[in-house]
Amino acid sequence: MATLSDVARLAEVTAATVSNVLRNPDKVRPETAKRVMRAIRELGYRPNLNARALAEGRSTTLALMLSSIANPFYPEFVLAAERAARRAGYFLMVCNTDDDAEIGRAYLTQIAGTLAEGVLVLNTDIAINELCETAAVGAPIVLSLWEHPGRLPALPCVAVDFAQAGVLAARHLLELGHRDIGMLIGDGCGGLQDARATGFRDVMRDAGLEPDNAAVREIPDTIDAGYAACIDLLARESHLTALFATNDLLAIGALQALATRGHKVPDDVSVIGITDIQLAHQVRPSLSTVAINTEAIAQASIDLLIRLIRDPDVQTPLVVDVPPPVLVRRQSTAARK
Amino acid sequence: MATLSDVARLAEVTAATVSNVLRNPDKVRPETAKRVMRAIRELGYRPNLNARALAEGRSTTLALMLSSIANPFYPEFVLAAERAARRAGYFLMVCNTDDDAEIGRAYLTQIAGTLAEGVLVLNTDIAINELCETAAVGAPIVLSLWEHPGRLPALPCVAVDFAQAGVLAARHLLELGHRDIGMLIGDGCGGLQDARATGFRDVMRDAGLEPDNAAVREIPDTIDAGYAACIDLLARESHLTALFATNDLLAIGALQALATRGHKVPDDVSVIGITDIQLAHQVRPSLSTVAINTEAIAQASIDLLIRLIRDPDVQTPLVVDVPPPVLVRRQSTAARK
Repeated sequence: MATLSDVARLAEVTAATVSNVLRNPDKVRPETAKRVMRAIRELGYRPNLNARALAEGRSTTLALMLSSIANPFYPEFVLAAERAARRAGYFLMVCNTDDDAEIGRAYLTQIAGTLAEGVLVLNTDIAINELCETAAVGAPIVLSLWEHPGRLPALPCVAVDFAQAGVLAARHLLELGHRDIGMLIGDGCGGLQDARATGFRDVMRDAGLEPDNAAVREIPDTIDAGYAACIDLLARESHLTALFATNDLLAIGALQALATRGHKVPDDVSVIGITDIQLAHQVRPSLSTVAINTEAIAQASIDLLIRLIRDPDVQTPLVVDVPPPVLVRRQSTAARK
Repeated sequence: MATLSDVARLAEVTAATVSNVLRNPDKVRPETAKRVMRAIRELGYRPNLNARALAEGRSTTLALMLSSIANPFYPEFVLAAERAARRAGYFLMVCNTDDDAEIGRAYLTQIAGTLAEGVLVLNTDIAINELCETAAVGAPIVLSLWEHPGRLPALPCVAVDFAQAGVLAARHLLELGHRDIGMLIGDGCGGLQDARATGFRDVMRDAGLEPDNAAVREIPDTIDAGYAACIDLLARESHLTALFATNDLLAIGALQALATRGHKVPDDVSVIGITDIQLAHQVRPSLSTVAINTEAIAQASIDLLIRLIRDPDVQTPLVVDVPPPVLVRRQSTAARK
């Protein structure tokens, strides 16, 4: 079985360079890296991570645990997180809990501190105290996409000001003259998106408008659910001139429902979402939304996790702030007729 | 540090039951599993997978390597594969190579035979002979979504008859009376989707139609690329009454381009794709497509990988067939006017 030194000898570099090629490829000149990779392949060398992790008490793998890979937002987050991890010399493996807290627990037991040196957990159904127990005995855990900056968990987290996203959506619709606004509130993996809805309602109330409960639907976080809820709203609440959805999937479902029922967007009804997933600019009409900065959030989450791995004595709870949400005006919103 | 026996004692079950709860939860009654999970949490027990994998020479984790998590098809495949793995008592971790063969190699070196007991590789840029080298020294590798049933690799694989998908799309458009048909051919992670295009062209030629090269675009596998190519086609080839895309993303991009340019689908132009991703039924007009059975392919891929893990002496190359593609008629195709 070839060793790291064998590889170094064949590639005519130091062992540290071989290590760098494997862990911090950015630090190595491309030609050198190529020579090292050739030597690695020629010798069939494989860093035995199990043995090495046990010997060194560390691995080079991070885990990202998410609840629903089928929700198009998460693959976008995964891509950004994987790139951020790679830049720091870490691998990222992704575990999909399929919206099942029990599976999440099993993954945590399986990976935290053994397969992965640290775990990034996105909006989860697992209770915070259970995550704390895992963090206490195993590897660092960072919660990302935390929805409630005003109510912090006992774990390090990256908080996103989703209430502010709701505020921006409400201001935009009010400025366009809308008063009769329906709400689609997502009930997703991280629970009901009530911070977003509260931010929206607060602005409405400040403008003297009491939200109409008959025009509010709390629904699962999917395009299909947004579609069905909007079809239902259109049948019962024909006075609405705008729809606010707490995320883009619901808003895109609403766009499709409006098209199906022959309503023009934005002439008859304006629609706005939150997040700015790729699809938001790809659908027609393109979707106005409040963008959270997915790349910055992913980068900050990976940075925080690595910081905790490198220095376990860092004081917790830690909260990392990310850039505030930003309104993105596209074709789906216009002035009330 | 608590042991498996400690957990068994506290939960008043056998050690085998604790193992089952961790590996084959389906085999354990829910109440028992609950009691065991409670004991595991109470004792802070964590099966040290590194140690156990070294001791037993096995782990319980499979890896799925894919090149572009941003392509919406892959998350759908991941979900199906993760469920199939879980049913068999395995964890599945996902590695995104970000369309970079070098990263794919690094992941293989990092995970095959160490972190993961077997690796499922989806359409990859890594050369087959490199994968073979890895398979020879490390864990079993299964190629899935192999596009060329007539030209098999030296590795076990799950082949999908994509040529037949092209055949079905062509027959559908011909039956609807279309003769002037543009082609959007995806150049994705698994290379140019030429099997699909060839199947399509063969049917056209049998009908006495020579494909018009001016109306063919080879483009990256994204909605945005499909959109741009279709805008360009509309400007140059105004006689087209139908578009065939080798995958749904390109077709969805084409739908958006047609809407942007004021062409009605299917009245002015029919559009058909291949795959049947979730978005295909969610866009408006909904997309006619040729469905490959993603769930069956994922299940067959996981089954084959586990079979090779359990019996390394199985004769290779192995090819597993999956259900043939099926035409799904929706709103985006209609008779030529």
